[in-house]
Amino acid sequence: MGGLAGVVAGESAICTCGLGNGLNYRGYDIADLALKCNFEEVAYLLLEGELPNKEQLADITAKIQAGRDLPQNVKDVLKALPASSHPMDIMKTATAALGCVEPEAEDFSDQMDKILRLLGAFPSFLVYWHHWHVNGKEIELKSEQPTIAGYIVERLKEKEPLEVEVRAMDAMLTLYAEHEFNASTFANRITASTLSDIYSCMTTGIGTLKGHLHGGANEVAIKFVLGFDNVEHALKEVDGLFARKEKNHGIRTQSI
Amino acid sequence: MGGLAGVVAGESAICTCGLGNGLNYRGYDIADLALKCNFEEVAYLLLEGELPNKEQLADITAKIQAGRDLPQNVKDVLKALPASSHPMDIMKTATAALGCVEPEAEDFSDQMDKILRLLGAFPSFLVYWHHWHVNGKEIELKSEQPTIAGYIVERLKEKEPLEVEVRAMDAMLTLYAEHEFNASTFANRITASTLSDIYSCMTTGIGTLKGHLHGGANEVAIKFVLGFDNVEHALKEVDGLFARKEKNHGIRTQSI
Repeated sequence: MGGLAGVVAGESAICTCGLGNGLNYRGYDIADLALKCNFEEVAYLLLEGELPNKEQLADITAKIQAGRDLPQNVKDVLKALPASSHPMDIMKTATAALGCVEPEAEDFSDQMDKILRLLGAFPSFLVYWHHWHVNGKEIELKSEQPTIAGYIVERLKEKEPLEVEVRAMDAMLTLYAEHEFNASTFANRITASTLSDIYSCMTTGIGTLKGHLHGGANEVAIKFVLGFDNVEHALKEVDGLFARKEKNHGIRTQSI
Repeated sequence: MGGLAGVVAGESAICTCGLGNGLNYRGYDIADLALKCNFEEVAYLLLEGELPNKEQLADITAKIQAGRDLPQNVKDVLKALPASSHPMDIMKTATAALGCVEPEAEDFSDQMDKILRLLGAFPSFLVYWHHWHVNGKEIELKSEQPTIAGYIVERLKEKEPLEVEVRAMDAMLTLYAEHEFNASTFANRITASTLSDIYSCMTTGIGTLKGHLHGGANEVAIKFVLGFDNVEHALKEVDGLFARKEKNHGIRTQSI
């Protein structure tokens, strides 16, 4: 006997699977959240338990925005990492490095500040590393873009983002924000249970999410999709996949 | 209902608690292992299931020894991290960085090579960072010291280690090598279960071990012990601690 099948490992007030459209955050259907909210509103909902009013939203947005710039140490770490690195390994290494430079207080009294700092810094890790290694240039990390979604698109493309791009990025961030008791959350909670720091919880979460049976499935799915020449080719390949009973990532049979 | 109290979360053939002197690796009493083996023999036992013969021990020792030097990228990362960093955060960041530079094969075919590489590199992370920031110098990471224990002592002190120091370090590494289903192993196994890579498993383990309710308890205990002026002071403080029913780390009542 062993394994955790059928065991209640813990409870979450944050997220439920299997109600409404299948996934709810704090009781709100994710389809509604993805259509009507930006990611800052969803982050506030997940962190504080309710949607923000106008002042609360302005406050969390400004705090996240203020956390975008990186200390020189972390920039130097990102420069030192190779261009061939896996982006999830970049996120994990930079998060660990930021934890060396700006450690959490031992009594966790600044935990929410560190969480908002990381929400600001996460996109910066990737865009800074990307532009340094791909384009050989050091980009400015401060930006007038108020939202995380706008900032990611603006800094990746290095031009003013289109409204539709920002909405798509916001919806994607919202849809991936939570998934109840998934593997990364579970591992993360074990790290937290020893009273380790928030950066260690985050590196555990990122490292666990990287696996192909978890968040890394997206990577496998996009490689699969990019291998198709056209719609007919895609349908033929997917039919073949099901006929051969092969494993697939991100394909729901009812969508075919 | 929730939590994992009383639940069999999995089984381990590697380690048992509660038999013999309290802890066994692959059926061997840790007291015997700590007295009679060096850490390379124990590592082989844990990895392969049995103690090595002379050739097997020479082979694993040489492979670990060959993994001590670090790529320039990882050295640059260690230089960039501040002198004030927590050593466990250094270990975590450097492990993540090495995973960027020397990633594991996607089919895990080189997993044992990566494990032996990490066993060689772990001490190097700390001694390289320590001497760069404390003494302002870049130390040589190659060494004629055959064992991990000898290498750690030699490079920390930068002189030929005494036999008693090496034996103490070997015993300590052996005694800390395994503890059945502790929090870091548990979190580590969840990271592995998503088919993430060995470096991600290790950063999860290090980040979880850092907590004061797990490996970090050593840190709390040594701070406590270093606060005593003499034996009388220690006895008085410890008596007071028990009288006030305060939490203590690393003090067994029967030892007082």
